[in-house]
Amino acid sequence: MGDVQARMEAALARLLPATHAVPGRLHESMRYAVLEGGKRVRPLLCFAAGELTGAARERLEVAGAAVELIHAYSLVHDDMPCMDDDILRRGKPTVHVEFDQATALLAGDALQSLAFQLLSESRLADSPAAQLEMVKALAVASGSRGMAGGQAIDLASTGKPLTLPELEFMHVHKTGALIRAAVVLGARCGATLDAAGAESLDRYAKCVGLAFQVVDDVLDCDASTATLGKTAGKDAIQGKATYVSVMGIARAKEFAEELRVQAHAALAGFGERAGRLAQLADFIVLRKF
Amino acid sequence: MGDVQARMEAALARLLPATHAVPGRLHESMRYAVLEGGKRVRPLLCFAAGELTGAARERLEVAGAAVELIHAYSLVHDDMPCMDDDILRRGKPTVHVEFDQATALLAGDALQSLAFQLLSESRLADSPAAQLEMVKALAVASGSRGMAGGQAIDLASTGKPLTLPELEFMHVHKTGALIRAAVVLGARCGATLDAAGAESLDRYAKCVGLAFQVVDDVLDCDASTATLGKTAGKDAIQGKATYVSVMGIARAKEFAEELRVQAHAALAGFGERAGRLAQLADFIVLRKF
Repeated sequence: MGDVQARMEAALARLLPATHAVPGRLHESMRYAVLEGGKRVRPLLCFAAGELTGAARERLEVAGAAVELIHAYSLVHDDMPCMDDDILRRGKPTVHVEFDQATALLAGDALQSLAFQLLSESRLADSPAAQLEMVKALAVASGSRGMAGGQAIDLASTGKPLTLPELEFMHVHKTGALIRAAVVLGARCGATLDAAGAESLDRYAKCVGLAFQVVDDVLDCDASTATLGKTAGKDAIQGKATYVSVMGIARAKEFAEELRVQAHAALAGFGERAGRLAQLADFIVLRKF
Repeated sequence: MGDVQARMEAALARLLPATHAVPGRLHESMRYAVLEGGKRVRPLLCFAAGELTGAARERLEVAGAAVELIHAYSLVHDDMPCMDDDILRRGKPTVHVEFDQATALLAGDALQSLAFQLLSESRLADSPAAQLEMVKALAVASGSRGMAGGQAIDLASTGKPLTLPELEFMHVHKTGALIRAAVVLGARCGATLDAAGAESLDRYAKCVGLAFQVVDDVLDCDASTATLGKTAGKDAIQGKATYVSVMGIARAKEFAEELRVQAHAALAGFGERAGRLAQLADFIVLRKF
């Protein structure tokens, strides 16, 4: 896992625009937003799914970077004063604090464009038609019926009690969609799965996506700001519905464990090729930060 | 031209998410940002370039919509308080005024994603490889070395005197890149141009893109808020370098006319197929709003 993370850091550093290219300050803020931080969960999932389909690492680096850029842009915009208004991310000042709000806005915008540029400018799938499907998958996962839509639902529901189905609906969009896209894109870099295989993989991705959020909510409640590298306890302060507030912390931990088991079950038909996907389900549920 | 504009309005209304789809308020804000407004200059250029290469109207509607969504998202973000802080656009309150800042931020983000979704989900070019090149062209034109980069340069230079080459560099990015992309995408929907044809068409697009900005600067200085549908005289108030401030209004008008002549010259080899492109060069330079 450390090996993939190191490859991803190098790939991101290479694929982001250089700070000496005009406009330097914008490029600096884009690199600041993306580099030296984050667990790179989405690229890890992308690589693990690619292992299942025998994808080339060079392709997975680019596809993983595209997904990570979308994730990074969403954090930059999410942290802005008009959204979550947070000053700390990955242990560093957020982009609008380190630079300024206008730069943060543009950096997020340009990171999104760059994600789609990466998905279109080098060969990532066995056919251009399959690669166009990758573009579509990432666009849908990012947009109003994916991640951005989930954030809109999150904003609209702040301060309101949510039912469990409402909470799940929100997270299926807000975090789940992009995590599923990471898995789909990674698999797409290699050989095509049959319908049953694609369905199993998507079931895995749904479980892992939801588990990721449940664990995030538990950690926000349980861990310290220093451990998390971002402001802890924020959800409760902001009156946000979380798995902890809706089902209690003990049940939320049980639920994450159930999802981990379901994720493993979804991989059963793949055999050893899915070893890394199985490890990641464990990592996502058992992580402490 | 009215016919194309009417087709585009219908296409945009059809391609944008319905307000009854969750999240309704986000979808409402996206529709508000795009529909019932704007001259649709970029889609018009897209259609005119498509006429040159015999492209199907159904493809041009989708490609034109993708470019227009990028343009619309850039206006939504540009108008926000941390950027230009404007309250009026196309004669209506700006998105963050009509809704709220968080919604404006997310609406812009989701409009960008939707643009790339449109470019990837239906057949727009004769081969998927050519269509991937369309995705790349739009991504590069939108990103840090295109439109978003131009906005960053614009922000950084506010209040500073700019030389003419610096001003041109800014606008080649800020408005020029997307206008060129509109022309490239429209042409790509039809038969492939030879190298000389593609080069001539790009020369036309560069002239028209620059002319558009020069005329915008002249109108910002000359016309009223009511005519423009956006706050007039803003550039001077904000201390922004414009073609008017750098070269004076008389010379700026002459320069726009020179660019119009150059645009026509670039089309000389195409004959009648370029009729609509020629008309648009006139429309862009001779418009009063």
